[in-house]
Amino acid sequence: MSLQQIYRTSLSLLTDLYQLTMAYGYWKEGIAEREAVFHLYFRKAPFKGGYTIAAGLENAVEYLQQLRFTEEDLAYLGGLRNGKQGPLFEQGFLDYLRDLRFTCDVDAIPEGSVVFPSEPLIRVRGPLLQAQLVETTLLTIINFQTLVATKAARIKEAAKGDQVIEFGMRRAQGIDGALSATRAAYVGGINATSNVLAGKLYDIPVKGTHAHSWVQAFENEQAAFEAYGQAFPQDSVFLVDTYNTLEGVRHAINVAKKLAPTGFRLNGIRLDSGDLTYLSIEARKLLDEAGMTYTNIVASNDLNESIVNSLKQEGAKVNVWGIGTQLVTAYDQPALGGVYKLAALQQENGNWTYNLKLSEQLEKTSNPGIQQVRRFYDEQGYIADMIFNEAEPLPEKILIVNPLDITQRKAIPAGTAYKDLLQPVLSRGELIQELPDLKTIRQHRETEIDKLHESIKRLLNPHSYPAGLEAGFQQAKTDLVLAIREKGEPAIK
Amino acid sequence: MSLQQIYRTSLSLLTDLYQLTMAYGYWKEGIAEREAVFHLYFRKAPFKGGYTIAAGLENAVEYLQQLRFTEEDLAYLGGLRNGKQGPLFEQGFLDYLRDLRFTCDVDAIPEGSVVFPSEPLIRVRGPLLQAQLVETTLLTIINFQTLVATKAARIKEAAKGDQVIEFGMRRAQGIDGALSATRAAYVGGINATSNVLAGKLYDIPVKGTHAHSWVQAFENEQAAFEAYGQAFPQDSVFLVDTYNTLEGVRHAINVAKKLAPTGFRLNGIRLDSGDLTYLSIEARKLLDEAGMTYTNIVASNDLNESIVNSLKQEGAKVNVWGIGTQLVTAYDQPALGGVYKLAALQQENGNWTYNLKLSEQLEKTSNPGIQQVRRFYDEQGYIADMIFNEAEPLPEKILIVNPLDITQRKAIPAGTAYKDLLQPVLSRGELIQELPDLKTIRQHRETEIDKLHESIKRLLNPHSYPAGLEAGFQQAKTDLVLAIREKGEPAIK
Repeated sequence: MSLQQIYRTSLSLLTDLYQLTMAYGYWKEGIAEREAVFHLYFRKAPFKGGYTIAAGLENAVEYLQQLRFTEEDLAYLGGLRNGKQGPLFEQGFLDYLRDLRFTCDVDAIPEGSVVFPSEPLIRVRGPLLQAQLVETTLLTIINFQTLVATKAARIKEAAKGDQVIEFGMRRAQGIDGALSATRAAYVGGINATSNVLAGKLYDIPVKGTHAHSWVQAFENEQAAFEAYGQAFPQDSVFLVDTYNTLEGVRHAINVAKKLAPTGFRLNGIRLDSGDLTYLSIEARKLLDEAGMTYTNIVASNDLNESIVNSLKQEGAKVNVWGIGTQLVTAYDQPALGGVYKLAALQQENGNWTYNLKLSEQLEKTSNPGIQQVRRFYDEQGYIADMIFNEAEPLPEKILIVNPLDITQRKAIPAGTAYKDLLQPVLSRGELIQELPDLKTIRQHRETEIDKLHESIKRLLNPHSYPAGLEAGFQQAKTDLVLAIREKGEPAIK
Repeated sequence: MSLQQIYRTSLSLLTDLYQLTMAYGYWKEGIAEREAVFHLYFRKAPFKGGYTIAAGLENAVEYLQQLRFTEEDLAYLGGLRNGKQGPLFEQGFLDYLRDLRFTCDVDAIPEGSVVFPSEPLIRVRGPLLQAQLVETTLLTIINFQTLVATKAARIKEAAKGDQVIEFGMRRAQGIDGALSATRAAYVGGINATSNVLAGKLYDIPVKGTHAHSWVQAFENEQAAFEAYGQAFPQDSVFLVDTYNTLEGVRHAINVAKKLAPTGFRLNGIRLDSGDLTYLSIEARKLLDEAGMTYTNIVASNDLNESIVNSLKQEGAKVNVWGIGTQLVTAYDQPALGGVYKLAALQQENGNWTYNLKLSEQLEKTSNPGIQQVRRFYDEQGYIADMIFNEAEPLPEKILIVNPLDITQRKAIPAGTAYKDLLQPVLSRGELIQELPDLKTIRQHRETEIDKLHESIKRLLNPHSYPAGLEAGFQQAKTDLVLAIREKGEPAIK
């Protein structure tokens, strides 16, 4: 279940060099221990979708808790050169790293939650050096798992209750590209995987059929099916398209009839090429005529949510979907552009300075302050989300502003029910309570998606869920931006 | 350097379940030890490019050599159920797996070689069960690294001799998505990486600048640059766009002048947003006017080979390229569709049967036979590649046929120089000789690319390199396809 089980090597060097050079700079400047607040968030929902599913927190937390520099790590860092001028890092800094443990507070939105752009998925508060150092690894873990969990949720949505099996390992982006994709896809809603190691590590049901090579290895297809059926009397799914799909279905039926006296029951056939709508309809007819109404029709072949959606609209008689490459690589958008930005820093006098990164592109200017996300809801479901600065008092009348168009506003009536999404996970580096297991996370994701309006879950051109900034928070940000634009730089209090 | 260093867990379960169910089926049928030949190949060059760079072999070989099932693996497999009928696998099979060692012969095209569609990158010959079992993992490793090495080579091509630094870890597809992407990008030609762990594991130079948060953490930008410059007198690259890019360049120059008496020399500035052509030209002017002609201009911000190409055509004064997401995820085509197909199987009588998987799509029908790739060349470079059946005699007059259009043929004059690309790597599971190190692989890639005609290296709409099937081999395949189409199934001799 854990990174520690998977990786032998220390992951402390799994970061961009600049995190270490900045750490060194903070240390030299004597500001390494200054209290800082960073937020991890993304700017746009992936796949032009209406919602995103947060995933990867458990692995991220585990990485944070295991963070320590081994002697081997330090020896490597000690060997790096600064141009021609000797070591890149002073020995004192390496000694500092040797003793470093992660002691920040971490608040996070639970895995499996629906989330929206600009909402901090993770907030890290603690010594500047530490909070900075973990940026890259947190992003690597959260960006990818959130991306794949969202893709999986979309595919499940398209499959409308049918089983979905992930089998993308062979096209995954490396070994962990496969393992963590399977974990995230399970968070997102897939029912099983072909990835045996992921099954073992994460306790996910494993499923499989057979390859064309199985059929090729026998004198003919029927002999191949018969051998496989004898080996797996209850769990056989015959791949029927090695030579000719509908002939393959007939061979499958023949074998099922022949083996019936031994208690054999054909679990399914798999279609892996050709016109899946036509072939599945014809296959269903043949199977039903043979009395095999219980035999599943599994389809595969570079499927994604829009193809599944089309096939279902065309009346394809597929009831189990095998999804590979398009799921585990999130093919149409293989990266989530999550970022991790400094938003507040305590000064020597103890005052907070709120920080932002300015950009010509409005959506790229980060939000300054110590942020929380409040979600308002009623019996029907979720109404709106509001990002606000936890360190400042909220007004009585709650107004949410769309930061990309401040004329779009939503007033929240007093007394509306709400929950604050960022929940404490680590306190000074210590786990506050056990994180939920994957099954609990899956249930949470299901409940969450149920609370979204259908129009937001639409695969194509969904409605926008109202998620914005609290009006006072928006105003404070605007003031800060204007002040920087005027002076060219922020005025630190 | 090795998977064993990275992964604590046994990777034997890192496979699709169906490899294990087929293995069980072969074992039960008593054909597990029958000699088989599989080939790993892809059908189309990625990125609509003219060539592909093979990568990942070292990791693949290491996986094969380490293949063994631990007691923990076997306990997991022993716990899997077959529907409601008790264990999925018999104990005898688990005992067989316990003793299993990889004893196949493996031939492969060396890493860093240029390769073309349908050419076997790896050929595995040995007991059917073993050769089948390793399919998924070989594909995971080779597909991804070959994809990224090719992307890196294209970016290097676009950068025309400029330095290229990989820094995509934060958007990579998981931890190994980052580590193996960095390795592959280095094979493909990048000069350095920001990924410290990849630097340590693979001995790749590591480079870095700093983040916006560094600037935000100081009272103003100039103070931030000064602090960083003091920490890294020879190796500073200042990120200048936190508030206003050209102001940032001026601040960088001021700091460089101020610190000059201490021996400081500004290595570079980094542009991460805005119009990179305009900003780099203006920045170059400012730097040159200040006498800082030695200061590099590094550009980043979602770059890929076509953007680099455009920027250079527009006269951008960038001379170091930082490439992240688009490289490590191979964003525009995040998966290589490599496959692994059974092509020959020995029968009980010792005769070989040549196998293929039939498809309605011509390019998806696999090639039957024990294959080798012969590359013809002259002093100018590579002329043509020919896939042929090593087990059959070659005719005197060599004719290469394009399998997708058999009217396209190329005759090779007698006496033309050639080399056979598949080289023995493992003999009965034992390494024949040490594999080359990454530096040697990089040199090999450079030599290889030099031997391709410019028109094949073109980024957009490249010429097709002549790579096809030996005419007799093509004819044998056609005969086999026709025989199957006629009978519906292959006629096994």
